[in-house]
Amino acid sequence: MVSVMEWKKYYSERAKGLKASEIRELLKMTQKPEIISFGGGLPSPDSYAVDQVKECIDYVMETKAKKALQYGTTQGYSRLREFLADYMTKKGYNAKPDDILVTAGSQQGLDLVSKVFLDKNDIVITESPSYLGGLGAFRAYLAKIETIFLQDDGMDLDILEERLKTGKKPKFIYVVSTFQNPAGICMSTEKRKRIVEISLKYDVPILEDNPYSELVFSGEPPKPILAYSKGNVLYLGTFSKIFSPGIRVAWVCGPTEIVRKLTIAKQSTDLCSNVISQRMVYEYCHRGYLEENLKKIRKMYKRKRDIMLKAMEDYFPEGVKWTKPGGGLFLWVTLPEYIDTKEMFEDAIKNNVAYVVGTAFAGEKNTMRLNFSYPSDEDIVEGIKRLAKVIKSRIK
Amino acid sequence: MVSVMEWKKYYSERAKGLKASEIRELLKMTQKPEIISFGGGLPSPDSYAVDQVKECIDYVMETKAKKALQYGTTQGYSRLREFLADYMTKKGYNAKPDDILVTAGSQQGLDLVSKVFLDKNDIVITESPSYLGGLGAFRAYLAKIETIFLQDDGMDLDILEERLKTGKKPKFIYVVSTFQNPAGICMSTEKRKRIVEISLKYDVPILEDNPYSELVFSGEPPKPILAYSKGNVLYLGTFSKIFSPGIRVAWVCGPTEIVRKLTIAKQSTDLCSNVISQRMVYEYCHRGYLEENLKKIRKMYKRKRDIMLKAMEDYFPEGVKWTKPGGGLFLWVTLPEYIDTKEMFEDAIKNNVAYVVGTAFAGEKNTMRLNFSYPSDEDIVEGIKRLAKVIKSRIK
Repeated sequence: MVSVMEWKKYYSERAKGLKASEIRELLKMTQKPEIISFGGGLPSPDSYAVDQVKECIDYVMETKAKKALQYGTTQGYSRLREFLADYMTKKGYNAKPDDILVTAGSQQGLDLVSKVFLDKNDIVITESPSYLGGLGAFRAYLAKIETIFLQDDGMDLDILEERLKTGKKPKFIYVVSTFQNPAGICMSTEKRKRIVEISLKYDVPILEDNPYSELVFSGEPPKPILAYSKGNVLYLGTFSKIFSPGIRVAWVCGPTEIVRKLTIAKQSTDLCSNVISQRMVYEYCHRGYLEENLKKIRKMYKRKRDIMLKAMEDYFPEGVKWTKPGGGLFLWVTLPEYIDTKEMFEDAIKNNVAYVVGTAFAGEKNTMRLNFSYPSDEDIVEGIKRLAKVIKSRIK
Repeated sequence: MVSVMEWKKYYSERAKGLKASEIRELLKMTQKPEIISFGGGLPSPDSYAVDQVKECIDYVMETKAKKALQYGTTQGYSRLREFLADYMTKKGYNAKPDDILVTAGSQQGLDLVSKVFLDKNDIVITESPSYLGGLGAFRAYLAKIETIFLQDDGMDLDILEERLKTGKKPKFIYVVSTFQNPAGICMSTEKRKRIVEISLKYDVPILEDNPYSELVFSGEPPKPILAYSKGNVLYLGTFSKIFSPGIRVAWVCGPTEIVRKLTIAKQSTDLCSNVISQRMVYEYCHRGYLEENLKKIRKMYKRKRDIMLKAMEDYFPEGVKWTKPGGGLFLWVTLPEYIDTKEMFEDAIKNNVAYVVGTAFAGEKNTMRLNFSYPSDEDIVEGIKRLAKVIKSRIK
């Protein structure tokens, strides 16, 4: 129905700046079946343990249906919080169930943290490039983003420290610590320890977003920054990349008083998270299926990464660089400075291949993000061939 | 873990005002098994159609598991939006699927509307008393609440019109139109039409929150205010009270451009709603189970209301008044002016009966909300007896 009332004039200041995410607008162009898309950030459909999920839902509905259909507590299902407290303790942070808040995806964690901490014109320091959904959440509360360049071993901490010595104090430093989205980079242990010290020295908290660390391709996942913290780090974890994003179950972990404040903020946001899913996730973890399936997922994504890296070595022209992630879903390509990936995008679509432009992540104009978890093995090779052709036509 | 960093000093202005809801704090006192609580707002556990829910989840997991476990679109599952557009059209508002946004409960609708419309010190006009979660959502964005007294047939529209003639223009008028929470009052058709005219005349939109209209005890539910609108009403509907709150599926319906703006706001809030639940709800509705079970639920809640009304007539002393709702979950009790229900609460708990104080809903000091959907038939009678004793001891 067409509105006779002009609603726009009633928008809040923050709403005026809310725009559809660039990534989503671009991805709309990639829906044609002939396009091989490295643009999304979806887990592989083959990563879902359908039979085990069914078993767990069946159990919940056979034994606790009426509780699962009723309202739950805002903080989240107690057994799941107990599991997550143990899990975080194993990761090196001594957590109690009260240090955990269950959220509808980490995106809700980002929204709640923004709601509780950000006033207009507050500063958030992020990596460049950084996670689009984080940037979007902070900007929705009218915060200003300041970026610090990402090195091969994580944020450039010399620059960070220089920045903190002068200028307006940021509200927090946002770090995607492990196999980062979008660049695939993993912060070194040395830097994890040092950023905690910097945070304490300059009295600026850290928000650690860590969705990918369990998707490690060899050895153990590195300990989170949180493990080295002294009450100065708030942590976001999620089941989206290691189990299922459709169930929208994630968690915040950190100092009890902050978790309590975020819980109060969640009350007016959605009352509680989906109860069936929380109980199902608990069963899935409790029965050991999380660990069991992670082994398979790691192996599958490692294979896909290897296929993509090999294809890039085989087909990409000289002058193109890329990261070689030790885990996660993404890698980051840097073209010669004179190539603008946004300007090149239309040409890529014509050649039936898609990516996300680096500027969407507060990255440089000549960069792009490629996802290797979603496309099939064959499509990875064919897509890289097509992309190589597009890039080659622009190499001077 | 105790924080060495004092996080409080980093809180946003809005966070400083965020407090645990009064209702929740009071309800914590009512957890003892010997207490009969009229305090909650939960559907009856007997209202859940467990076998049909199981059938629908099974179908989704048998046929579409990989889609149900994957990310969904922000606006919501397309078939569910088609169903809801048809549903709203039957209710008198000609809706297309693009006029629907699926949310995680109506509480998320309230949060998103607040995010998109409310700046600090903006005014929202609400009924007195009004829904606590609505007030909480508006206040979380630093809006100011102005209340208009609720009459037996809905908001006092003469007072509303007087208010709109002068003073700062409100951003919107918030109305829980049908079998209102907390008072159980239903706005008359005449008033529905008139509030639309007032809204247009003074150029102030209406936010209609309508979770209870399907819980009508005789005849058909009244048409929503939205049905009389001319692009000046935004509507919140939910499956929480007519199917299940644990699944967190609700919807916004209204002018396309506003739904689109709210969808963009949802992107940075939680990316998408739970996909399994959305698909399961669609199946449940599509198979006719919603209508089938509504018949049972209406009958059950009518019985419970009748039991409560009868018990109040039998046991409450003179000088006590209450509403006689034609549907919904709640009724509203008004004691003599000299009795403060907050001050009386401790005494009620000692007598093993609980309610919610009216002031929690921006109501008068001598009022309280009673829920009749959750307690058993026997507990309703026994609880009213206990409450009558507590009230009698204070009657002068």
